[in-house]
Amino acid sequence: MYGVILAGGSGTRFWPYSREMYPKQLLKIFGDQTLIQATLSRIAPIIPSDGIYIVTNPQQGEQIQFQLPPSTKGPHFITEPMGRNTAAAIGLAAMVLSKRDPEGVMAVLSADHFIQDKEQFLEVLLQGRSLAKKGYLVTIGAKPTRPETAYGYIQKGEPLSDGHGGSRVARFVEKPDRPTAEGYIKSDAFFWNAGFFIWKASCILEEIFKFMPELAAGLTKIKEALGTDQEEEILKEVYPALPSISIDYGVLEKSDRLAVIPAEMGWEDVGSWSALDEVLPKDENGNIITGNVVNIGSTDSIIYGNCRVVAVVGLKDVVVADTQDATLICSKDRAQDVKKVVEALKKREGDSHLVHRTVLRPWGSFTVLEEGASFKIKRILVKPKARLSLQSHTKRAEHWVVVAGTARVTCGESVYDIGTNQGTFVPMGVKHRLENPGEEVLQIIEVQCGAYLGEDDITRYSDDFGRVAKKVEAKR
Amino acid sequence: MYGVILAGGSGTRFWPYSREMYPKQLLKIFGDQTLIQATLSRIAPIIPSDGIYIVTNPQQGEQIQFQLPPSTKGPHFITEPMGRNTAAAIGLAAMVLSKRDPEGVMAVLSADHFIQDKEQFLEVLLQGRSLAKKGYLVTIGAKPTRPETAYGYIQKGEPLSDGHGGSRVARFVEKPDRPTAEGYIKSDAFFWNAGFFIWKASCILEEIFKFMPELAAGLTKIKEALGTDQEEEILKEVYPALPSISIDYGVLEKSDRLAVIPAEMGWEDVGSWSALDEVLPKDENGNIITGNVVNIGSTDSIIYGNCRVVAVVGLKDVVVADTQDATLICSKDRAQDVKKVVEALKKREGDSHLVHRTVLRPWGSFTVLEEGASFKIKRILVKPKARLSLQSHTKRAEHWVVVAGTARVTCGESVYDIGTNQGTFVPMGVKHRLENPGEEVLQIIEVQCGAYLGEDDITRYSDDFGRVAKKVEAKR
Repeated sequence: MYGVILAGGSGTRFWPYSREMYPKQLLKIFGDQTLIQATLSRIAPIIPSDGIYIVTNPQQGEQIQFQLPPSTKGPHFITEPMGRNTAAAIGLAAMVLSKRDPEGVMAVLSADHFIQDKEQFLEVLLQGRSLAKKGYLVTIGAKPTRPETAYGYIQKGEPLSDGHGGSRVARFVEKPDRPTAEGYIKSDAFFWNAGFFIWKASCILEEIFKFMPELAAGLTKIKEALGTDQEEEILKEVYPALPSISIDYGVLEKSDRLAVIPAEMGWEDVGSWSALDEVLPKDENGNIITGNVVNIGSTDSIIYGNCRVVAVVGLKDVVVADTQDATLICSKDRAQDVKKVVEALKKREGDSHLVHRTVLRPWGSFTVLEEGASFKIKRILVKPKARLSLQSHTKRAEHWVVVAGTARVTCGESVYDIGTNQGTFVPMGVKHRLENPGEEVLQIIEVQCGAYLGEDDITRYSDDFGRVAKKVEAKR
Repeated sequence: MYGVILAGGSGTRFWPYSREMYPKQLLKIFGDQTLIQATLSRIAPIIPSDGIYIVTNPQQGEQIQFQLPPSTKGPHFITEPMGRNTAAAIGLAAMVLSKRDPEGVMAVLSADHFIQDKEQFLEVLLQGRSLAKKGYLVTIGAKPTRPETAYGYIQKGEPLSDGHGGSRVARFVEKPDRPTAEGYIKSDAFFWNAGFFIWKASCILEEIFKFMPELAAGLTKIKEALGTDQEEEILKEVYPALPSISIDYGVLEKSDRLAVIPAEMGWEDVGSWSALDEVLPKDENGNIITGNVVNIGSTDSIIYGNCRVVAVVGLKDVVVADTQDATLICSKDRAQDVKKVVEALKKREGDSHLVHRTVLRPWGSFTVLEEGASFKIKRILVKPKARLSLQSHTKRAEHWVVVAGTARVTCGESVYDIGTNQGTFVPMGVKHRLENPGEEVLQIIEVQCGAYLGEDDITRYSDDFGRVAKKVEAKR
């Protein structure tokens, strides 16, 4: 069995913890692991990393790679030039897989869901594999525990005679209204649509060719280019024109090969801040509180503090989420409207909807501490033995002060080491490079001065990460 | 007439905008002026600055001075070694004044009250002066506009035959309960006790000698030392032992020389965040919003944003107050409990209850941008032509980068100027001085490195502000 992890999606619902370039799957909102890390850990007992494909976009792919242990075996990345909904993503993954193993069974999983009972989840995957091998398109129906109106539902039909706990699918229901949902949970026939699918690559492709000829045509063009020099170019050409339709709507609602396996595994999508109530433990006043928080008499609230002091007094049913550069305070019953905040921010100048102040890079990370009219201050962390590209800037000079570790500085023709408490100066226009020759993390404070301080004022001459001659926003 | 401004008080009620060392009177919560500035502007038409005495403590006195235009004529500062409630503060001021002009009339005013109708206020002061000259202890009764339970009340008695709109005082009432307060506003006889008093210095001292012999004895000792070399020493010795009692309780409730002048001047104490509702204009949804705020559907809320993004979604009757290092989110009806946050913070390590990250100094200001284990980053602003003390540090080195203006740097035996984009380094233990020789504000970024970075690691050799050889916390 192969695992296909859908890891696209933009980070609007958990703003300000998530950002457009830093969505929910990259966050540690439930514990020590980020959601993508937890997703991969969960399937590790039955799918080796070489069998795992992560479908994502270039920027998120880079962020996901930072969160995974270094490995040459996998997971593999399938990079969409842009998001085109689940039918295209799954079709692309099926096409890639079918070149490797046409009769292989693929389990399509979301990168950012919560599952309480990991063993039950694996059992369901294995049940699904058995059904998939027989040619079924298998969906997973999570047993509902409340009349949730934020989820879609699957109504099961007659049981399958060939066992494995599956049934036919009577119908899919989009997010129902409250009375309808209340009716569903009284019935035994309705399940939450967990958005997990198990099928043979060949089967789903057959159905795509049957019900989505336009997508099928695009995928056929892409298939020919896969593994060739033209792959990236063809993808960029074909992908934007693919129909942006969900696999549910494009295929599943039309196919007669469907099956559903009911599962009690504590599944939740956790689609908003208020949904954390369903998955996280609460204190005696019904609060979920982490970080630097002072609470005076608040109840039933979710408070995600950070470094700064957040004091909450007498709140009820409120979500507070504090980050370095933005704070959300939201009535719990309006958690779906957090996306409206992100929309409002997009219309403004600035990039606070897009990125955090801390940006991960292959060599380490940088955090913008302060920006003024003609200066910008960053804290830069460089991993042991790592180095930034050899670069220059046309419009800014840089002052570096080492506050931990040792820095090897290339500045023009000179190469020299500076230790903790020492500083150096890189004039405008001069080729330079920052390197950590040591065994501990190098930490420097950089003060940039100049009339223009955009990240795109960079010319790269040599880079350990293949970024030469690219001028990419928000990179260095 | 003289003005005596009581400007003590600690900053707990408007945390995090106010801090213990930065109370409400120093804030611009109602407009362009801070409350102490507004208080001084208000009385300026009838009391010249030489006639004004500000009673405060040393730290707040320094902060208030930063907010006043430079003047050698006044206001004068009367510095209490510590707060001992209003009877002691007023007695001290009366003693100081009685040496200058025993029959002088003093108007005792709070530094941090709100007054809508400035002309009416001045008229009331002049009415009060006329009554005070006849020997009355005049209180001001603000006409109540709602059954406020957070204010004390004055019940007026029979009208004074000698005119000026005054009446005898029937009694003082402490903060009443709601039904009582509702009864009061239906009556014509009850007024809010504005805490403003007008009387001759000699009269209030007579009453203090009559009703508060212990305070009188202390003030007598102090009187002998006023203007001598022993003044500060005697104050420090005597003041802590003075009874800590309000003038209302200690004198006014016992005296038979009382009068009250009713006034419709739009007076408010504004004792908490929620009280802003009474004095500031609201948007069409009942909100008071300033700063960098995104509001999606919040109503009847008070949102004080700052530089960072604060997004509020669907809040009702909530106060949000954001500062660089702390954010308050408080149900409006719990605004009195903000002081509990300050108490909780006092029990923790750190000084976030005490000071802001931006600290004003005579030469300018500094803001702590970031603190790490072995480094601290500050933005330092130096006023034109101002300079810091000649100083050295035993445990830290300092890197300076000029981001605006020109710096004159003394470092050991060298004196040199560095311009915008240039940097310099001050090694540990070396005598140094930072000066702004120019006409614009000098802005530098300072990166401090060392094992200990406390503000008390400073030895001053020469200082324009008389701070030589003092090691005072939070100074430089």
